[in-house]
Amino acid sequence: MKINGKSWRTIWLREDGCSLGVIDQRKLPHDFCFSIINSFEEAAESIRCMMVRGAPLIGVTGAYGLMLALQKDPSDESLDNAYKILISARPTAVNLSWALKRVRKQVEKLPLEKRAETAKSEAKSIAEEDVLMCEQIGNHGFSILQQIAQNRSDKERLKPLNVLTHCNAGWLAAVDWGTALAPIYKAHHAGIKLHVWVDETRPRNQGANLTAYELACEGVPHTVVVDNAGGHLMQHGFVDVVIVGSDRTTRKGDLCNKIGTYLKALAAYENSIPFYAALPTSTIDWSIADGLNEIPIEIRSESEVLQVEGQLKDGQIASVRLCPLSSKGFNPAFDVTPGKLITGLITEKGVSRATESGLKELYRK
Amino acid sequence: MKINGKSWRTIWLREDGCSLGVIDQRKLPHDFCFSIINSFEEAAESIRCMMVRGAPLIGVTGAYGLMLALQKDPSDESLDNAYKILISARPTAVNLSWALKRVRKQVEKLPLEKRAETAKSEAKSIAEEDVLMCEQIGNHGFSILQQIAQNRSDKERLKPLNVLTHCNAGWLAAVDWGTALAPIYKAHHAGIKLHVWVDETRPRNQGANLTAYELACEGVPHTVVVDNAGGHLMQHGFVDVVIVGSDRTTRKGDLCNKIGTYLKALAAYENSIPFYAALPTSTIDWSIADGLNEIPIEIRSESEVLQVEGQLKDGQIASVRLCPLSSKGFNPAFDVTPGKLITGLITEKGVSRATESGLKELYRK
Repeated sequence: MKINGKSWRTIWLREDGCSLGVIDQRKLPHDFCFSIINSFEEAAESIRCMMVRGAPLIGVTGAYGLMLALQKDPSDESLDNAYKILISARPTAVNLSWALKRVRKQVEKLPLEKRAETAKSEAKSIAEEDVLMCEQIGNHGFSILQQIAQNRSDKERLKPLNVLTHCNAGWLAAVDWGTALAPIYKAHHAGIKLHVWVDETRPRNQGANLTAYELACEGVPHTVVVDNAGGHLMQHGFVDVVIVGSDRTTRKGDLCNKIGTYLKALAAYENSIPFYAALPTSTIDWSIADGLNEIPIEIRSESEVLQVEGQLKDGQIASVRLCPLSSKGFNPAFDVTPGKLITGLITEKGVSRATESGLKELYRK
Repeated sequence: MKINGKSWRTIWLREDGCSLGVIDQRKLPHDFCFSIINSFEEAAESIRCMMVRGAPLIGVTGAYGLMLALQKDPSDESLDNAYKILISARPTAVNLSWALKRVRKQVEKLPLEKRAETAKSEAKSIAEEDVLMCEQIGNHGFSILQQIAQNRSDKERLKPLNVLTHCNAGWLAAVDWGTALAPIYKAHHAGIKLHVWVDETRPRNQGANLTAYELACEGVPHTVVVDNAGGHLMQHGFVDVVIVGSDRTTRKGDLCNKIGTYLKALAAYENSIPFYAALPTSTIDWSIADGLNEIPIEIRSESEVLQVEGQLKDGQIASVRLCPLSSKGFNPAFDVTPGKLITGLITEKGVSRATESGLKELYRK
């Protein structure tokens, strides 16, 4: 992806082969800077302090973190210690534990002198596979956008294709491309005239902060709206298609994603607007069927609701409080959208209906 | 209503009979203070700068403003001039123009020496009628809450009755009681155990700022949630009933209210949760039927979307920016909820279905 015309990834192995570069996402969209990571401790800290965020990116950071540990000390103790510290940086991130296990499995039976090099190549593979997977999601989603654009009436075709998205499932959450935004980038590169409605996505404002930043960097026309506005936009024909990401998808096609996704799915369904989720296969949880009753929802700090972080006029980042001091907040981070409200699931393998039979069919191929 | 145990209204005629007191709503919920208004110019300014807000309250402020003008100079020129300046303080506020016309009609044919006294008694009447009307809405809504509370199972009755509300339709928008919050206050006073979910209501956060403040003052248990959370709460049985206000209601029962109301109505409908709007008869527009196509929606400044105002740690009020500088925002202030999603309309005359026949029946009585 491009920032000020230059290609970037969210994480990269530096030329010395023993340090990482990462985009520091904490001050986006107000400040762009990157940071150098020289040790597994720094890698763990970058995850903990949310310098890096997004499931795929956290996984890759963890994998490279193990490499950094083994470059300094390839012993079993070192491996165990780094593994433990890295996994505890974000204990609920499934992708982090998956990536760490994958690297450990590759190196733990090797002689000490081969461990660091193998960890490096495995971490690289994880990163490259993620880029390729996101790009494939982008290609499949692009076909859908192309079809929707073509199926519009002559009069409608004069307007850009209006896509609404919620939260940030873009390249800042991955290594490159992203999931929900990958089809948008593919369509933009292919010359389809489009415009993106960006839900600000309270409480953490990942839409206003990150999705708007990504789209601005890539020159994709977009407009930020409050989360309340999407229903009104859909009622008035201002939205042609909705694409969101997914944190977890059940085998029956129920979608667990950022809080507020469900409300947009209801409005899309009511107004006959196609609603897609874009997701890597790794987020499909085949062990559960009923998302509403089987997926535990993370409850985050009430302070995210009671306060908002942003940039003051003088450039400083600050939090402002919205509520009376005595008021409490409740902050469920995700909600579940039943498969019946979802037009399709866009994966790197292709597009599936959001049903058990649809998913089975796609993965039987 | 009570603030720190003392009874307040949002506006009152002071003992001298020629000045007004108003609660300064601009710094709520962070600072509580009131202001003295000595002239019609100050009354107009208090409307313009949003020291006072909410349709009924603006109307009463305008009416008392005319009184202040006539106390200083009861001439026709003075009346015309004050009328013009007051009405231009918020040109789109139907209630302001209604109240100003009502006072002018009462005084314009009177001899000069009787005008100020008549304006005073008319402005007082407008204020007292508003209080009474809101209290009646409260009584009708209270019966509904009582019934919902009683109809719950024995197990459910152990929990408080959970009411969700959007935006602020409380006593801060009126003279006392409010509309959507009046039934809640009535139920609370009657000893019904309840808990209110307060939608923060981006972009202007009237829920987090004002509704939370009112409920805190009255000791009503409440929790602030982001606008995204309501669907999730309803899916999980955490909401027993939704009550919102109304800016305009069509004769067929379509509801124009703060942006985001429609999304909550969709979620309530999908989850079989009763959804009520509380409104004075004056907001029913008998001239229009189809809310979606006939009600023009006010588009407000994008800055309300791109920035958020709140209180810094040091107590100062400040705005923080959420988006990249190059991103634009779009800010429709209201949306329309079709009558089919609404369980009932609570007015001062009683409760009606949100249909043309329902409204006709109520107002035929």
